[in-house]
Amino acid sequence: MINFTVGPVQMDKETLQIGNNQIPYFRTSAFSDLMKENEKLLCKFFDASDNSRAVFLTGSGTASMEAGIVNFFTKQDKVIVVNGGSFGQRLIELCKIHEIPFTEIKLKYGTPLTEQHLAEYENSGYTGFLVQLCETSTGLLYNMKMIGDFCQRNKIFLFVDAVSGFMADNFSMQEMHVNAAITGSQKALALPPSMSFIVLDETAINRCKINNVKSLYFNFPLYLRDGERGQTPFTPAVGTLLQLNEKLKRIEKAGGIKNQNEIIKQRADNFRNKIKDLPLKLFTDKKNASSCVTALTPTNINVNAYQIFEILKDEYDIWICPNGGDMAETVFRVGHIGSITDKEIDKLIEAFKDLQKRNLL
Amino acid sequence: MINFTVGPVQMDKETLQIGNNQIPYFRTSAFSDLMKENEKLLCKFFDASDNSRAVFLTGSGTASMEAGIVNFFTKQDKVIVVNGGSFGQRLIELCKIHEIPFTEIKLKYGTPLTEQHLAEYENSGYTGFLVQLCETSTGLLYNMKMIGDFCQRNKIFLFVDAVSGFMADNFSMQEMHVNAAITGSQKALALPPSMSFIVLDETAINRCKINNVKSLYFNFPLYLRDGERGQTPFTPAVGTLLQLNEKLKRIEKAGGIKNQNEIIKQRADNFRNKIKDLPLKLFTDKKNASSCVTALTPTNINVNAYQIFEILKDEYDIWICPNGGDMAETVFRVGHIGSITDKEIDKLIEAFKDLQKRNLL
Repeated sequence: MINFTVGPVQMDKETLQIGNNQIPYFRTSAFSDLMKENEKLLCKFFDASDNSRAVFLTGSGTASMEAGIVNFFTKQDKVIVVNGGSFGQRLIELCKIHEIPFTEIKLKYGTPLTEQHLAEYENSGYTGFLVQLCETSTGLLYNMKMIGDFCQRNKIFLFVDAVSGFMADNFSMQEMHVNAAITGSQKALALPPSMSFIVLDETAINRCKINNVKSLYFNFPLYLRDGERGQTPFTPAVGTLLQLNEKLKRIEKAGGIKNQNEIIKQRADNFRNKIKDLPLKLFTDKKNASSCVTALTPTNINVNAYQIFEILKDEYDIWICPNGGDMAETVFRVGHIGSITDKEIDKLIEAFKDLQKRNLL
Repeated sequence: MINFTVGPVQMDKETLQIGNNQIPYFRTSAFSDLMKENEKLLCKFFDASDNSRAVFLTGSGTASMEAGIVNFFTKQDKVIVVNGGSFGQRLIELCKIHEIPFTEIKLKYGTPLTEQHLAEYENSGYTGFLVQLCETSTGLLYNMKMIGDFCQRNKIFLFVDAVSGFMADNFSMQEMHVNAAITGSQKALALPPSMSFIVLDETAINRCKINNVKSLYFNFPLYLRDGERGQTPFTPAVGTLLQLNEKLKRIEKAGGIKNQNEIIKQRADNFRNKIKDLPLKLFTDKKNASSCVTALTPTNINVNAYQIFEILKDEYDIWICPNGGDMAETVFRVGHIGSITDKEIDKLIEAFKDLQKRNLL
């Protein structure tokens, strides 16, 4: 099978090799050293300010979204949440569950957040801003520089869900005035699903330390304390952390995160050029699109997007990524993260062309 | 390295092989079928009653302990917590954080809970009982039949942390009147650390459905709902779940859980017989000891337990399991779970004998 989903994605051979090894005991100085290196490189690749820290949480991206919300916000906050798709909607749900007062900016899915949206919230006493870098359900890339500037001039704490956007898209916590951001192991880092990682700047570190976090497993101050000696308070997915270490060092050697951004962007551009003559419409306008994933709508209204996923899986040995909820019948996605070759992209294009010939696309 | 810790433990070659494979996309009927099989076998191996269900949580054992507490109990409950070591202590902390009214039965570490302890809590309006099957920090195996009978006659909900005890020790949710129990991937199942599993009987299912669980990631009703179609609400550690499936089927083929209990018990007995002449004292009396792990105290008061861990690691390529907190200097542990051969046990015994010769033990 060729895997064009947005996670778990195809892993590199170096990562797979580690998965074939026994997992070492981790309460050792050797593992602590590796974790300190992980933290240093992750903070560097998020372009976080000096004294930033990372939390290594065993759990999906949603675990880190929820953990971030309970560590950074309280009932005394007043936050803006951008809802431009399923993952924006999830941030809304989390604010409701934890009774964080919020204002929702609901976008037409696939359309960008603009200065006009933000204008009415200037100087309005907001204390937090929650948004994705890339809304994975539509492939929309938010203008994070614009959001960051808004947050900076309004002294608003900015928490970014970069689960799928990190590495695929240009991202700098410092330049974009981001206080905390998360990513997941099974996205562009191309490790097994199991962990998510949160990078916190000094403001974020201070925030979670004064909040009385009502959770043991999600208690960032505990992770930060144990992290000082390169450890985690609870048994982490040790194998994934070894794979993370190998991967981060490999990224560093290959020219760092900018180089990764470029590789993934070229891959996305390549794919988008090749589908130009196919009966597929970009769900999100090219200029607002993340390089992580392309969301597509078949232009033939008789074609069901979910069925394309099923046929490609069953007859062509290819996984694309189906959408859920309201978009299930009309939108599917092709991911550009993980270990994907040009040859594999060509195979997908050929499959689309064959479907077209068969009047199935 | 030979690994005698209590997790991550040594994995079987079949498990490692799967770790070397790409991870499939999981929102498919093939994965759903596999998950339904996982659920069926897990419920069977916990000897849970008909209509029991399993929740597959990406997170450590502590994640499942916390999730269980917020799903099964509220501020209106009144629970008994047995504290016989670090993990009993963790249950206490969790009740405090979530404001669950509790009474602590604090035991001298390494000593059993008895009928006398329980007598004063008969007919006292308790609604919940929290206890480990095996207290991993001391190797104590609780008398779960006695606890279960107490809970049954007092109509108390019994939640058991069987993270390290499952498979190592005899355990039956039905015979022991247990309503919910958990285990972890990196314990006797010998999979990579990343997931924990909760088995719920009908009473437990009903309890979490009426509680208004203040968490998205820990919301069991969501897991139970998606589990009906063999899915999880959030991306799980898919690789671990594939490994779980292979392992559960292998256990089934090899005679089921009773056979595993026997294998691990023989291994523990073998080890305990072989150390009889060494200057090591069982921290927990043999008749109260779990087969999961043996906690040992060097009889020579000049010997530091943590140093034994360090020397075995650095000079003999063997990991035993150090204790934390108050017991760090006086107690270390030898695990009996995972893929361990008699030959490896002999190597550990030889290493102990060599340390003795060197006047280090």
